[in-house]
Order: sequence, then C-alpha cells, then structure tokens
Amino acid sequence: MAWRNYLSDAWRRVSIRNGFDQVDGPIFELLDLYKVKSGEGIVSELFHFMDRGERELAIRPEFTPTLARMVASQANALPKPIKWFTIPNLCRAEKPQRGRLREFIQWNVDVLGSDAAVADAETIFVAVDFLAEMGLGPDHVRVKISHRQTVRHILAKLGVSDERMNAAFELLDRRDKIEPEQFTKGIADLGLDEHSVERFDQICRMKYKIGSLGPLREQLGIGDELAEIESLDEQLRAFGLADWCEYDLGIVRGLAYYTGTVYELHEISGVERALAGGGRYDKLIEMFNGPPTPAVGFGMGDVVLSNVLIDKGLMPDDVSPKPDVFVIAVTDQGAAALGATTAMLRRAGLHVRFSYKETRKFAKLMKEASNSGAKWAVILDDQIANKVVGLKNLATSEQVEVKLEELLAHISETG
Amino acid sequence: MAWRNYLSDAWRRVSIRNGFDQVDGPIFELLDLYKVKSGEGIVSELFHFMDRGERELAIRPEFTPTLARMVASQANALPKPIKWFTIPNLCRAEKPQRGRLREFIQWNVDVLGSDAAVADAETIFVAVDFLAEMGLGPDHVRVKISHRQTVRHILAKLGVSDERMNAAFELLDRRDKIEPEQFTKGIADLGLDEHSVERFDQICRMKYKIGSLGPLREQLGIGDELAEIESLDEQLRAFGLADWCEYDLGIVRGLAYYTGTVYELHEISGVERALAGGGRYDKLIEMFNGPPTPAVGFGMGDVVLSNVLIDKGLMPDDVSPKPDVFVIAVTDQGAAALGATTAMLRRAGLHVRFSYKETRKFAKLMKEASNSGAKWAVILDDQIANKVVGLKNLATSEQVEVKLEELLAHISETG
Repeated sequence: MAWRNYLSDAWRRVSIRNGFDQVDGPIFELLDLYKVKSGEGIVSELFHFMDRGERELAIRPEFTPTLARMVASQANALPKPIKWFTIPNLCRAEKPQRGRLREFIQWNVDVLGSDAAVADAETIFVAVDFLAEMGLGPDHVRVKISHRQTVRHILAKLGVSDERMNAAFELLDRRDKIEPEQFTKGIADLGLDEHSVERFDQICRMKYKIGSLGPLREQLGIGDELAEIESLDEQLRAFGLADWCEYDLGIVRGLAYYTGTVYELHEISGVERALAGGGRYDKLIEMFNGPPTPAVGFGMGDVVLSNVLIDKGLMPDDVSPKPDVFVIAVTDQGAAALGATTAMLRRAGLHVRFSYKETRKFAKLMKEASNSGAKWAVILDDQIANKVVGLKNLATSEQVEVKLEELLAHISETG
Repeated sequence: MAWRNYLSDAWRRVSIRNGFDQVDGPIFELLDLYKVKSGEGIVSELFHFMDRGERELAIRPEFTPTLARMVASQANALPKPIKWFTIPNLCRAEKPQRGRLREFIQWNVDVLGSDAAVADAETIFVAVDFLAEMGLGPDHVRVKISHRQTVRHILAKLGVSDERMNAAFELLDRRDKIEPEQFTKGIADLGLDEHSVERFDQICRMKYKIGSLGPLREQLGIGDELAEIESLDEQLRAFGLADWCEYDLGIVRGLAYYTGTVYELHEISGVERALAGGGRYDKLIEMFNGPPTPAVGFGMGDVVLSNVLIDKGLMPDDVSPKPDVFVIAVTDQGAAALGATTAMLRRAGLHVRFSYKETRKFAKLMKEASNSGAKWAVILDDQIANKVVGLKNLATSEQVEVKLEELLAHISETG
C-alpha cells in the first residue's frame, strides 16, 4: 500500500496541477454497458453476476464506459471542456502474468468537449509530467503516436482500397506480434502493386520525429491530408514534448473505438507491455446516447508502471511514513504517563508511536524505537513525577532531559 | 470526489500520525469467507457470483474477514502489535436509505496481537482524533462504551442464569429500538425477581462517566469482576478521552463476534445511525485458522459521517483544489505560446489551467479565469514576441507586465 499510495498520490498531484478534477463511479455496472464499447467479446474478460433483481451486473474492467455514461447523462449541464481524472480499482478475469493482474488500479485522464489538438497534446503532457516526476526521462520512455485519419490517407495513397482498409489496420496492429515475413506477406495480400508493398513496409517501419513531418509529406506527395497530424505536431512542440514522442504508424490500438490521435507510452527497450495507452474517441459519448462530444484521454495502470520503476531503481525502497517520535516507558510510573504523553504529541500533529511491550528494559525498548525509524525517542521514567522526560535524538544518539511542557517546542525547534 | 478525498485524506493523515500502516485487500473474496464471521445470514446482504472456475465469490461488504484472513496467514511473520488501517470501497445489497448506501467507503482501524486495554483506548483515541480534526467535539459526539464481560458479571449478579444470558444480551441490544414497556416486559421474562427487574432496568438505563465506576461498583456490590473495565477506564483517562466517552451497558453490537470492550460513536442527539462501531474480537483470527491473536478495532463509514458534518456545517463548501494560474491568450500570436507557457508553469509544480475557448476577447476570457478560482491570470498577447506577458492578481485586480523569464519568480514571491 505504501508503494500504491506513492503512485496514486503522484497521479492525483499531477492531475490536479494540470487542471483535472477527480471523479469516480460504482465498482459494478450493468453488464450491457461494457458491451456498448467492446461488444460481446468483453463478457469473457470480466467478472459478471446477477443480482436479486435479475439484473446482469459486472465488476468494472475499465473506467471508460462509466465515464461515457456519466458524461452522456450530464453533458449539457457540464461546462466544457470536461477535464476529469479517476483512479479506480478494476478487475479482469484473466490469468495473472507479468504486467497483468486480476485486480489493479488505473489512472484515467480525459478531456471531453473539445476537438482541438491542444486537448490531445495536453493529455500526453499529463502522462509525461507524471513520468518525469517519477524520475523517468526521454531516455527511458517513448510516446508512440499515430493518427487514424493520417494513416488512412497514407494507406489510401498507397492504393489500399476502402474494403481492405480494416484489414490493413489489423495488420499494422499485429506488426510487433508477428514475424517480419508474415508482415510482408500480409501487405501483399492487401492487393497492392510491388512498388507500393515496398513503400508500405518502409513507411510503416519508420519512426518520424516530432517537428519533422516533411519526410512523410515528401514520401507521400500529399499535403492537406496531414492537416490534423500537423496541428497535433504544433501542439506537441508547444508543450515541450518533442523529445519524448515519435510518430509510429504501427500504433493502432484496436479498431472500433478511437477516431483520431492514438498513442502508447512504452519503456524504450520495448520488453514491457505499454505503460499507458490512449487517444481520441469522438463518437463514444454518442454511442452512450449522449450529445456529440469529442473526447481524448489515456489510461495508465499500476502494474507495468511498477515493474518499470522497480527495474530502473526508481521506486523508493521505503516510502512508508516514519514516526517523528517513539515513546517508551522504562519504569511503572513512566508507563502510567504513556497514554497522556502520546496523546499530547499526536494532538499537536506529530506522528507518534509507542511501545506495546511490557518490558521496562531501556536497551530493548530503545532498540524498538530505533527500528521504527523515528527521529526522536521520548523516555518516560520516575522523573515524570517532576514533569521531566528524556528526549533522545535517534540520529545523533544525543540525549537530554526536557520539561514536559517544553517537549513539543524542543522537538519542533530541533527538527 | 472532492468531499470523499477530504474525508479519506484526513482518515489517512490521522491513521499515520497514530502509528498505523495502510493495507488493502481484493474487492472480492470467496463467499465462504464472509460466512465464517457472520453465518449464512450474510449471503442475502451482499453481491455474490460464480466465476468460470465455479467458485462462489462475493464483493466485499466489509473488510474484517479479509483482515482476519491476511493476519491469520501471516500472523507469525508479523511483528506485534499489528497496527493496520484500510479505506476500502464496500458494497451491500441493500435498499439505499439515509445513512446507508449500496456502495460506500469505510475506514477500518485495528490493533492485533495485544490484549492490553491500552490497545482498546488507542483505537478510540484514533476515532476521536479524527472527529476533532473535522471540527467535532465532546458536545457533538459521544463514544458509548460497554464491556461484554462486565455486563455478563452484572447480569449474573442480578440473577440472570447462564441459559438466559444470550436472551438478556439480545434484549439490551434492542433496547433503543423497542418501547420502554416492551423492554420492561423483556426483563421480567428473564426470570428475575421483582426487585432485580427494577435494578436491571435502572442499571441499564444509566450512563456512567469515565473515571467514576464507583457508583456501578457500589450498586452491584462487586469488585474484582470489574477489573477489565477498570483497566480500560484508566487508559481512557490517560489518553484524555474522558470528556468524549461514557459507559452505556446497552451497547452490545451483535452477539457472536465481540469478546470484550464494545463501543459506538454517536452524534449526540441520537437521530443518526452510529458514526462508527467497534470493539475487541479476541477469537476471530482463530476462526480464520490463525494462531490466538487478540484484536480490537473499529469501522467508520463515509455516509453517516458526511450527513453529520453537513448538518453541523462542518463540511467545507468547496474543497476542490483551486488553480494557482489561469492562462489566457488574447491574440493569435499569444495563442501560439499557450502550450509552452502552461507547460513551463506546471513543470514548476504550479496548478495551471488555461482557456480552451477559441475567442480572443479579453473580458470573456478574464471571466473564465475568475470563475476558475485561480489566484493569477497570465495574459498572452503580441507582447509575447518580446517575451513579455500580462500578470493579473485576480484578488486585487492589479495587473502588471512581466518578463517571461521572471514570471515564475514573480508568482512565487508574491504568493
């Protein structure tokens, strides 16, 4: 939990400074809600059940359908753009494996109600802002960006027919999962001439830097069709994201859902699953019976993220909070003052632990105080009758006698 | 969510300063786990389902069984006492009503591995420490405390036989839910003589102050049997809790589960459900096949708590975070610098929003900046070519021109 809090506190902090408001929804929804976005296939991937009212319910495997339901029902009442984040616990009925657990938490960041490229760039900025805060840099992580319409234009220009467009997208989506020969064979099956097959292969394997759409434009001999990705390009540069990002036309992210920009964040070696994925989904709110509401956002889970941070030595060894003070009683008279002393220090907002041990042995108790990681030990003995306690700095081992009424001031002053 | 965070952040802050570590468990468990503590009756109160492995699972309606399972399986490896808190989302298959919702969050605070009264007192201190932090005082809330063994001794002394002891406890438990006549009749049914019936009624209706067990001792003519509640009494005084607490022998909290101290926190008028309830459950870890592990703790939900805080005007009207800066662009040239300016300020840790509006009209944009609650508006116009921006203090309406490179320093210095 200390690690999970370390991540989720940072998610929250970064979301807020980027101007997003936190929301949450129920941990289960009507099963049908998940079919709207993902079809019947989703049913085998989630935990579902029937309640006593014979309603088919499902534990949420993702937050987006809940988000879409909430926005669809409130769309006219909410000022635009709607900038929401959420950190739900989610469950998937899968075999646990590296990067995938049955239950996990996921950070979702979405801008709804704006079709401007600045919204796409802002969501990417938020993801990068968080990763930078975790100690990751452009040397560790790449944001791989593509754009549905741009890829469609490129594929059309190469000669892919409308009927084969989905097959071409599917092929791109599987590019990293299949052998190069299979990929090349797949291109040939799209019905292109030999020259186009070669160019398709070449274009899809290249990465394009932010701010250098020129090569792509020249290779393709097209201009206007790149307007959308050019707007995005401008915003990515404005937000200072060029070093983190690259265009990679192989990023597709499923077929039905995204409508424009799509992106994935990957650890740069590529051995892990994606750290995060997202994009523009301008039609989803309408699928949930809401008014037309353009939208863009991403999800980032805690599982792959933790693996990457741990591998890179960027997950602090011990993020659990350490006490300011550990109170021990070395005489019976001291023990009678344990509660009052502890209460007094805690009421002042200090993090205070005390020993539950029945022993009155100084060495044993002091060892427990040290092990707790506390800055100070407060030692109660018969001197408590004179309202005097021992105060030991556990870093320096310096020990002094302090009047009870001056204890708080002494601790606050000295650190 | 802003309110929920306001509460759960305070729960966490108070738990940590009282020396508790945060844990969590899965949102569903095997259904049988919930029957161990609560019997078959629990099944109708929770959401349960069968997974593809034909296991009966249930969405957690409470955290204690998970806690017991975790502690039982790790009991020997964990240093004692185990001081854990958790803030799970829980679900109950109930009709929603005031003080009870289908899904809610609940703060659980437990000390396991100590049978000392100091543990009982520490858990009560934590609950009170939190309520005090919310602005509640002994005038608003009463911690009603009883003790299973003490009540058993009192009832035995009055002549309640062992066979009728459970019936007597049940009667006490229902005391506030039934008419006084029914209660009196119930006592008579316990087989007591007329004099004892009267004394039973009298003793059970009285509240006893902390530090004044004398009247109870005298009335009963007993001594040693009060040893446990006397230890508790001493610790409650040590922790400075006397003003908040009273003994109320009508507090029973179910029959099977608690073994010693039991307590409930109530808003003082008594119109709301309990704010929190807890007590000592020394046998539970054994019921979950763990080693003998004495334990004490409480749960506090967000629903009644929110009702009480709102009723008393103690829930801040607006706890949602307000921006430090709102960036607006009043010319096209200014708009081109929106991303970079926003990114620069956010990278410095400031909470920054910007206008998504396409308008360049100063008045309209400034209204949006004001409505956001931001401290500052940063105004981008053609002066950005000279690396100069407008900076308006939204509280004083004072506006100055600032060099872009000095913007951060200016904002930080001026607050």
